Amino acid sequence: MTRVHVWGASGYGAAEAIRLLDAHPFFEVGTLESRSHAGAALGDHFPLLRTTPYVFCAEGSVLAAIRPGDCVIAAGGHGEARAHVPKFIAAGARVVDLSADYRFDDRAAYGLSEWEPAIAEAKLVANPGCYPTATLLGLLPLMARRPRPIQLIVDAKSGITGAGRKPATESLYAEVAGDIRAYGVDGHRHQPEIERSLRSFEVETPLVFTPHVVPLSRGMLADAYAIFDRAVDEDTVHETYADVYAESPFVRMVAGGRVPSVAAVTGTNNAEIRVDVLGNTVRIICAIDNLGKGAAGQAVQNLNIMLGYPEETGLHARAIVAG
Amino acid sequence: MTRVHVWGASGYGAAEAIRLLDAHPFFEVGTLESRSHAGAALGDHFPLLRTTPYVFCAEGSVLAAIRPGDCVIAAGGHGEARAHVPKFIAAGARVVDLSADYRFDDRAAYGLSEWEPAIAEAKLVANPGCYPTATLLGLLPLMARRPRPIQLIVDAKSGITGAGRKPATESLYAEVAGDIRAYGVDGHRHQPEIERSLRSFEVETPLVFTPHVVPLSRGMLADAYAIFDRAVDEDTVHETYADVYAESPFVRMVAGGRVPSVAAVTGTNNAEIRVDVLGNTVRIICAIDNLGKGAAGQAVQNLNIMLGYPEETGLHARAIVAG
Amino acid sequence: MTRVHVWGASGYGAAEAIRLLDAHPFFEVGTLESRSHAGAALGDHFPLLRTTPYVFCAEGSVLAAIRPGDCVIAAGGHGEARAHVPKFIAAGARVVDLSADYRFDDRAAYGLSEWEPAIAEAKLVANPGCYPTATLLGLLPLMARRPRPIQLIVDAKSGITGAGRKPATESLYAEVAGDIRAYGVDGHRHQPEIERSLRSFEVETPLVFTPHVVPLSRGMLADAYAIFDRAVDEDTVHETYADVYAESPFVRMVAGGRVPSVAAVTGTNNAEIRVDVLGNTVRIICAIDNLGKGAAGQAVQNLNIMLGYPEETGLHARAIVAG
Amino acid sequence: MTRVHVWGASGYGAAEAIRLLDAHPFFEVGTLESRSHAGAALGDHFPLLRTTPYVFCAEGSVLAAIRPGDCVIAAGGHGEARAHVPKFIAAGARVVDLSADYRFDDRAAYGLSEWEPAIAEAKLVANPGCYPTATLLGLLPLMARRPRPIQLIVDAKSGITGAGRKPATESLYAEVAGDIRAYGVDGHRHQPEIERSLRSFEVETPLVFTPHVVPLSRGMLADAYAIFDRAVDEDTVHETYADVYAESPFVRMVAGGRVPSVAAVTGTNNAEIRVDVLGNTVRIICAIDNLGKGAAGQAVQNLNIMLGYPEETGLHARAIVAG
Repeated sequence: MTRVHVWGASGYGAAEAIRLLDAHPFFEVGTLESRSHAGAALGDHFPLLRTTPYVFCAEGSVLAAIRPGDCVIAAGGHGEARAHVPKFIAAGARVVDLSADYRFDDRAAYGLSEWEPAIAEAKLVANPGCYPTATLLGLLPLMARRPRPIQLIVDAKSGITGAGRKPATESLYAEVAGDIRAYGVDGHRHQPEIERSLRSFEVETPLVFTPHVVPLSRGMLADAYAIFDRAVDEDTVHETYADVYAESPFVRMVAGGRVPSVAAVTGTNNAEIRVDVLGNTVRIICAIDNLGKGAAGQAVQNLNIMLGYPEETGLHARAIVAG
Repeated sequence: MTRVHVWGASGYGAAEAIRLLDAHPFFEVGTLESRSHAGAALGDHFPLLRTTPYVFCAEGSVLAAIRPGDCVIAAGGHGEARAHVPKFIAAGARVVDLSADYRFDDRAAYGLSEWEPAIAEAKLVANPGCYPTATLLGLLPLMARRPRPIQLIVDAKSGITGAGRKPATESLYAEVAGDIRAYGVDGHRHQPEIERSLRSFEVETPLVFTPHVVPLSRGMLADAYAIFDRAVDEDTVHETYADVYAESPFVRMVAGGRVPSVAAVTGTNNAEIRVDVLGNTVRIICAIDNLGKGAAGQAVQNLNIMLGYPEETGLHARAIVAG
Repeated sequence: MTRVHVWGASGYGAAEAIRLLDAHPFFEVGTLESRSHAGAALGDHFPLLRTTPYVFCAEGSVLAAIRPGDCVIAAGGHGEARAHVPKFIAAGARVVDLSADYRFDDRAAYGLSEWEPAIAEAKLVANPGCYPTATLLGLLPLMARRPRPIQLIVDAKSGITGAGRKPATESLYAEVAGDIRAYGVDGHRHQPEIERSLRSFEVETPLVFTPHVVPLSRGMLADAYAIFDRAVDEDTVHETYADVYAESPFVRMVAGGRVPSVAAVTGTNNAEIRVDVLGNTVRIICAIDNLGKGAAGQAVQNLNIMLGYPEETGLHARAIVAG
Repeated sequence: MTRVHVWGASGYGAAEAIRLLDAHPFFEVGTLESRSHAGAALGDHFPLLRTTPYVFCAEGSVLAAIRPGDCVIAAGGHGEARAHVPKFIAAGARVVDLSADYRFDDRAAYGLSEWEPAIAEAKLVANPGCYPTATLLGLLPLMARRPRPIQLIVDAKSGITGAGRKPATESLYAEVAGDIRAYGVDGHRHQPEIERSLRSFEVETPLVFTPHVVPLSRGMLADAYAIFDRAVDEDTVHETYADVYAESPFVRMVAGGRVPSVAAVTGTNNAEIRVDVLGNTVRIICAIDNLGKGAAGQAVQNLNIMLGYPEETGLHARAIVAG
């Protein structure tokens, strides 16, 4: 059993990671560090995890607990990881960081599991955010082809846990229920990250990205539209996607009467993708769970890869009726 | 007081129309005809309207009740209006039809209130569906300009009342809550209607339209993306929208830190529109209530116009916290 | 037109009051005071009210604005009203206070509109909370009879706006959606208030009160069970309720196949009550809108009474499909 | 591996059973029979199960497939099981029936796992409904004591999947969202079943039972109030519950600042129970998942018991953030 510590353990992504680790056949939950909740029972902070025996430990506990061969999931806020992650690595741990801090840093492998072969050898993996995960899974097969589109549009819909568990007026139940709205329209931090991710895969096509909050606790649907200056050959596009994801246990192409469904992937590490060629436009719809493939699920998948386990180990849960 | 009868009175659009008529200073609720619920109290069928005294009347009741000068809101299903509406007109009524039957028929004015001057003189108004309403309100100002875009993308999100009140598995609470999904992706009936609507305003630009179901009872957000082959001048675009809707009491341009919000228009006849110029793409986000400006609200607005009342008469309600 | 100022104007109850005042034929919105949001446009703080022109004013503005004959709705937090309300009254205003500060103070009339005749002459009305309103409307007719029950049970379900608009983890969307839970089970502040309210109506019967949070933005359902030591005569119970509320425009008895429905009263000042006699137990189910009859609606009703207007003035809105 | 067939496989309870069986270490999914959906892929009918390979088989398939030693979960509607279950048993299968058909039949063991020792030896187990499960788990420890209460009140709140997956107007999203309402108030079928269940455990205390629909896909909270004619000793009550459920892996007593939470048991076979002694009243709050411990989870637990496996086999899933 490999011990996996969680640093910054009080948010939704951390809770999901702990749930997955707790049920994993080769991982065990190590030290859970939370500056703000030190001493509290995990189950008092997260009612959903109240059947677990864990307790939040104080600042510095993860670093003190690391033994060579351990792993750490760093789930602290953006901007906080840089001060701690190097110490974890120096102490002998492999680290998956959920924050944005190392996403474009040469010292880290970019943790888009299906696309980054360097994960297997990495000491540090920078997990992509949920928006880039859904967007890149959907667009990268198409962008590997020629010709390239002249414009990309990504219209994404996210459950509110993407905004974290810190109390904020705009995340209150009565502000989210009954509404759909775009946000970050004046220069959201997600657009640069997605553009940069695309560029790191050598895609320079201009992108318009619109994130929305929808009344869901979790889940994400990203509709990507690639506009070409000529008609696109339908068959070869479908072949490309089928080929690219043929061996991926978590990415499923859907077609015919089936459409990607957020409910169908909630609680799982799966992504559902549908591709339609509509004249000069290719529409790719991708559904993931923002806390699953978009955060904690992909983190565990990456740990599996880093440690040489089959990547789907401990990630077989199916979606349930919920909502 | 003008009597307004409602034919096909058992659906969500009809209920909303009755609610609006009941509070209108110049209209009174006339005969409510429902083949399937004849004899039932309105308030047993619609708990929300249980404080009203109305009763559903049997087939033929509206036609029998019409006196010259009366109005009819035809809220029957698509394909059923053609057999009845001509009789209502022959009996002396003005008619607003909520179905698709007359939307592209020269005998009817197309009921997009802000754009169709013929409504004022019409005996028959064909109300646009909720998707065309949100799409056209957002796109038409831009399409009146030159140059034209080379591609249009419309990504629309709709509350489930858009699917009507007939029991269907996919409209059940447990199938809608916790999910977002596209539908009609293989050739939905909405795409042709929106294309045709655009063409009737002399727009031939290719369109990709993707409707989604989101976990909302009512409300619609349509994100339209117009892709040009060159950069678009931001100032003149904003001026165009400001000019076009300067006198419209129901269409409000929002900008700065404000984004169109479905919650902000729920229960109203308002539309909120935001325009952003992003390189070669213009993004127009439009929020309406699918039962308000997308159906019953616009129907009452059109009746106001047909009868010479100020168009906002009886349509001043504000949104409330709900959900 | 009577000017009504709102002191402590940044919460859900205040927003609902402003919405109602804005549409009221004899009231006009006066000064809106919010220490925390002074200078902000109301519509930036409450997107639902963005079509209004109002701006939050700084501390002290309401007191400075009061002219004799004005009214004030005090919507500040519990414990804050005592420092300000006497000054408003001294300046010549009539005040309805939404907080708990004056609920059991001889200087104030208790604002349960249907039961407190002193409201008409009062300078200061202490509005009951939403739980006491739903509970007392349901129980008081029964408690006026003899014999008295030996035990009262009240099982109440509340929308989350009852917890206010201050950011708190337990009010986040992802903590409320998908859950129902009791709260305050170890000695909630609501139980003493309801007991005290009952005692002020000379009811000493022991009470067990259980409040629950349910996934609703607004609305409240209170199921009250009165257990007697003998069988209760059904007919006279129903007669009592019918008599008591015969003249009340907002309280409606429902029976037969109809049950009180939160949706049916959302956005209104109505209460729906159903009474069933079941052996030695009388069950009374009462539905109100916690922001309507449970807060702002009843405040406006009380202002109407204090000023001699018909009590239903400006309170005719019907519920709409929402959620 | 024991094969478990599912007869009447198209409802929510069946889907949950198939999900659990599919992940169970000792069971495998056998034949799935659905008269109405024969020939369809399971994953087209249940998007959540679209990653499974199963297909619905035609009428008679389960009976034809049974080999001695197989098991059957009968998930057909109430009233339909009687015609088929005896044949399944005659063919050599053990059966757990989810319908009401055998709940008070001497040929079947009543499948309240924690309370019925006969399950271990039974050929036929009649699973209790979700309301009796939550009610009995909460009340039976108290009812085993003396003195007995003089009155029982059960106020239960259920997610809408309890009403099944058949399309019905009152189960539509727009009828459930935004509302809470009691139902079956004039003589619901649940009250007799619960009374009869209580009587089969020798409890004759009069009961008032009020079921409510709340805006949840799944989950159930039952608040039971037992009213005594004297004060109840708090310590011994708590000891009783602790003793009774000390060895039960799925029933957890919660206390202190913790309250039973529907979210905390959703997707699990767990029950959370809290007991408070409040004067002459004992309040017992019990949370279960209506599709878990209230249906499919308990069915699998019973199969485990019938086959001699540890009762928690295959039932370790934790709840997730959802809604």
